[in-house]
Amino acid sequence: MHPLFEDIRHTPLLWLVVLVPFVFLAQALKPEAHTLLFLLSVAAIVPLAALLSRATESVAAKTGDLIGGLLNATLGNLTELLITLAALRAGQYVLVKASIAGAIVTNTLFMLGASFLLGGLKYHIQGYNRDSARLQGGMLFLATIAILIPSVLAASDNAPSAAFTHSLSVGLSVLLIVTYGLGLMFSLKTHRELFTGEDHHASDEKEWPMSLALATLAIVTVLVALVSEVFVESVQQAAVALGITPAFVGIVIVALVGGAAEMVSAFSAARKNKLDLSVGIALGSAVQIALFVAPVLVLASYVIGPAPMDLQFWRGAVAMMLIAGVTASLVTSTGRSAWFVGALTITVYIIFAMTLYLLPPAGLAGS
Amino acid sequence: MHPLFEDIRHTPLLWLVVLVPFVFLAQALKPEAHTLLFLLSVAAIVPLAALLSRATESVAAKTGDLIGGLLNATLGNLTELLITLAALRAGQYVLVKASIAGAIVTNTLFMLGASFLLGGLKYHIQGYNRDSARLQGGMLFLATIAILIPSVLAASDNAPSAAFTHSLSVGLSVLLIVTYGLGLMFSLKTHRELFTGEDHHASDEKEWPMSLALATLAIVTVLVALVSEVFVESVQQAAVALGITPAFVGIVIVALVGGAAEMVSAFSAARKNKLDLSVGIALGSAVQIALFVAPVLVLASYVIGPAPMDLQFWRGAVAMMLIAGVTASLVTSTGRSAWFVGALTITVYIIFAMTLYLLPPAGLAGS
Amino acid sequence: MHPLFEDIRHTPLLWLVVLVPFVFLAQALKPEAHTLLFLLSVAAIVPLAALLSRATESVAAKTGDLIGGLLNATLGNLTELLITLAALRAGQYVLVKASIAGAIVTNTLFMLGASFLLGGLKYHIQGYNRDSARLQGGMLFLATIAILIPSVLAASDNAPSAAFTHSLSVGLSVLLIVTYGLGLMFSLKTHRELFTGEDHHASDEKEWPMSLALATLAIVTVLVALVSEVFVESVQQAAVALGITPAFVGIVIVALVGGAAEMVSAFSAARKNKLDLSVGIALGSAVQIALFVAPVLVLASYVIGPAPMDLQFWRGAVAMMLIAGVTASLVTSTGRSAWFVGALTITVYIIFAMTLYLLPPAGLAGS
Repeated sequence: MHPLFEDIRHTPLLWLVVLVPFVFLAQALKPEAHTLLFLLSVAAIVPLAALLSRATESVAAKTGDLIGGLLNATLGNLTELLITLAALRAGQYVLVKASIAGAIVTNTLFMLGASFLLGGLKYHIQGYNRDSARLQGGMLFLATIAILIPSVLAASDNAPSAAFTHSLSVGLSVLLIVTYGLGLMFSLKTHRELFTGEDHHASDEKEWPMSLALATLAIVTVLVALVSEVFVESVQQAAVALGITPAFVGIVIVALVGGAAEMVSAFSAARKNKLDLSVGIALGSAVQIALFVAPVLVLASYVIGPAPMDLQFWRGAVAMMLIAGVTASLVTSTGRSAWFVGALTITVYIIFAMTLYLLPPAGLAGS
Repeated sequence: MHPLFEDIRHTPLLWLVVLVPFVFLAQALKPEAHTLLFLLSVAAIVPLAALLSRATESVAAKTGDLIGGLLNATLGNLTELLITLAALRAGQYVLVKASIAGAIVTNTLFMLGASFLLGGLKYHIQGYNRDSARLQGGMLFLATIAILIPSVLAASDNAPSAAFTHSLSVGLSVLLIVTYGLGLMFSLKTHRELFTGEDHHASDEKEWPMSLALATLAIVTVLVALVSEVFVESVQQAAVALGITPAFVGIVIVALVGGAAEMVSAFSAARKNKLDLSVGIALGSAVQIALFVAPVLVLASYVIGPAPMDLQFWRGAVAMMLIAGVTASLVTSTGRSAWFVGALTITVYIIFAMTLYLLPPAGLAGS
Repeated sequence: MHPLFEDIRHTPLLWLVVLVPFVFLAQALKPEAHTLLFLLSVAAIVPLAALLSRATESVAAKTGDLIGGLLNATLGNLTELLITLAALRAGQYVLVKASIAGAIVTNTLFMLGASFLLGGLKYHIQGYNRDSARLQGGMLFLATIAILIPSVLAASDNAPSAAFTHSLSVGLSVLLIVTYGLGLMFSLKTHRELFTGEDHHASDEKEWPMSLALATLAIVTVLVALVSEVFVESVQQAAVALGITPAFVGIVIVALVGGAAEMVSAFSAARKNKLDLSVGIALGSAVQIALFVAPVLVLASYVIGPAPMDLQFWRGAVAMMLIAGVTASLVTSTGRSAWFVGALTITVYIIFAMTLYLLPPAGLAGS
């Protein structure tokens, strides 16, 4: 297990992994200390997420381009999937949906914008593969439309029945997963030559041996799932205690926690003038949440949830996803970037975060 | 009349023309068999529409570029115009508007997307004239704004009076027709050199002699008008009997029927790597519906309709037209295409068609 | 003061300056003649605005590129700022917001569109700096989002409290001003080489000496402030007397009056094939209103207004700003223009103006 410890030694972020046992200890000893459990579980998920993505990438690197690409495409957001599955099992659908919307918005605005800004502070002008950004922008646009439809119909005067919304959501989820599969076929197989330079892992990291990678993947998945349960149980009361709105928790905090590991990779790539990698991680992750994680959760709700979940979002969340998608399309349309592009993109994110932070909880009652 | 029969012999689609007499026979003998009359009239309109566009193109080819272009631009959607005029005379304004919205959405999403997909399955990457797509995208955008305004105002708390909506609709209609005329002047006259390669008819078809073309145009126009009356009379009850929503009939079925002939041309051009032609037919047809057919119907309602018709659409239809326009702008912005671009575009169409199919009729009461 | 009189002699627009004393005379003698006062003050503001921008440019030209750029960026819309400050002091927040929305819409649609049209009638195809248009389009997009958020939240079923809307508006205003400052740093300092050719003043005008420019700036600022007070006091009753809606006055008339001087510069540049200058004036002015004037007014309302003003706009105005921004992005994305592009852009403006003109006052009650 030498490479694992070496990685941990070189990555201060991973030192937080020592908090994992304390999460379970605290839950056993002080099950009512919601705020403590919330903070501990948030802090423990960050290093676990980093280990998960490290392990996924190592397995992907050993299995060749096609299967590796598929692995990254399905397990790349395993942390988000595990957190939202825990919320789904608990029937906390508002939190599930806020986490989905938050992951999409945070990846397309904060991760992309901060990559542009951090890269732009070091390099005057940076270039990247426009075709790849365009493909992911197109898929994100499609997902936003799919999510828009049930929400718009629900807001009309003659709101359709729950039965209609549920069958529509299942149909849309299947369409999204099929489109995601076709997109993988397009970018990994039939037109892969258009998407070179978007290799998902930085080349200067030493890959782990297969056995270590698989063992880490298995063990850490279980740990993330367990910590996520603690997180989901404590989040609601902790938010009240800390005076934060549930929308802010779901859309901002969960997304930043779940995506912390990927952000580290994206930002470090931007500082090395590898913007292809940064843009690929940011948009690719948003696309994966929208076209894979979200529909999988809708379909999974029929199996493991207390009731079926639909694709109908709070209309503020729909507006944010729509604006995030348009912003990403606009800023990536030239294939060039400078620091101000990053500043503009982050400012859109700050506008959203500030609104959610100030918004009184009653404003979300219609979610 | 030899070339006419030769064309019919070589085009299996045209064989359906034998159904035309049966439409009138059925109407005389079984005026209450709505479902039969609906299915017969739908099947009979398809070959008639094909003959109409064949005849229009032949006349256009004989009369030189400018007048020919104008003819194509005004008579290119004669079938849609005749169907909607029949619905207008019958006072079925919901059907008229659904048909307009459907023709725009179907042309920009299904016809364009299927052309990209069919072409892309044969050719790795296809190119086409970006300027022409941009011009048509701009005109479509303008028309969507014109249609958006009365609908948005009507949805506000202080809904304006019908008198206001009617004078606004007349004003907007005049503006749209003037813009359409200016657009023709721009693309056929002052800046025609930018739009070469977008010749509206495939070069490998033999043109008909003028007399045959004009006679066909006259006779088939009368036939389409008569069959459309049967269609409009039967569609409502047939939809109930078949368990289809009126919105699905208007937006999906009428548009596919009315545009079948053009689709055949667009798809066959895409398979011959003439994407300029496919994009020109798909977007050109959508532009013509939005900036010529729709405003002509509004103005005509003052003469032949039982009451004035306005430009205020069901807000679901407005959203679909808006999304269709944005999608068309996004996918044509590069001037290049591959199969996945077509798949994405068609998926947006499938999302709409699925929603309309599942939507209970009550959801449309506000149309 | 020779150059001042020479300028006045050569510019017929400036002859209207003789009306200024009549404004104050009429106000003293006939304070109830609202329609007369309204027409006189409108006619008197036009030449004063022209003198203001002439003086600002002269000072800017003498002080070097960086400080000059900053001066133009802060004082370029001094007339609009003075008119809206007068309305702010009078507590006429509906007029303030209508003027802001109107200035943005008029600059991006009418000024830009008419420049393209006038230039295009003389030159077949005109080119301009795409990067500069893109930067300003991006900043305008950001401002529209900032304005959209409070308006969308206010329209929801659980409308948030006034306290929330006010703290959100202050936060957004600070963000907008910071972004405006960063944008100036980007275009005037770190990446100025991308934005050459967008020099804000036409090169063939003789600059005034510093003392004349500063004196004019000081005196005319006072005059505009005084005339604006007369305008603000008379506008409401005059609109009723003339049968014009307040929305039309605020969005169309104030914007045309306040921007008349800039329009003259933009159109004359377009006729000289200096589209960089025209696009820079039109979009730069819209950006300045949205990211500088509007937030400054919100913050100023806490000091000089009778009550705090928020950033929540009538939703029709939000829709117009959004559409104007999208239109500007679309038409400037290629960096080329022809007459029809201008015609399309102006038609969008005409659609808005016509709607506002026809709209009964009740339709605006929710503003």
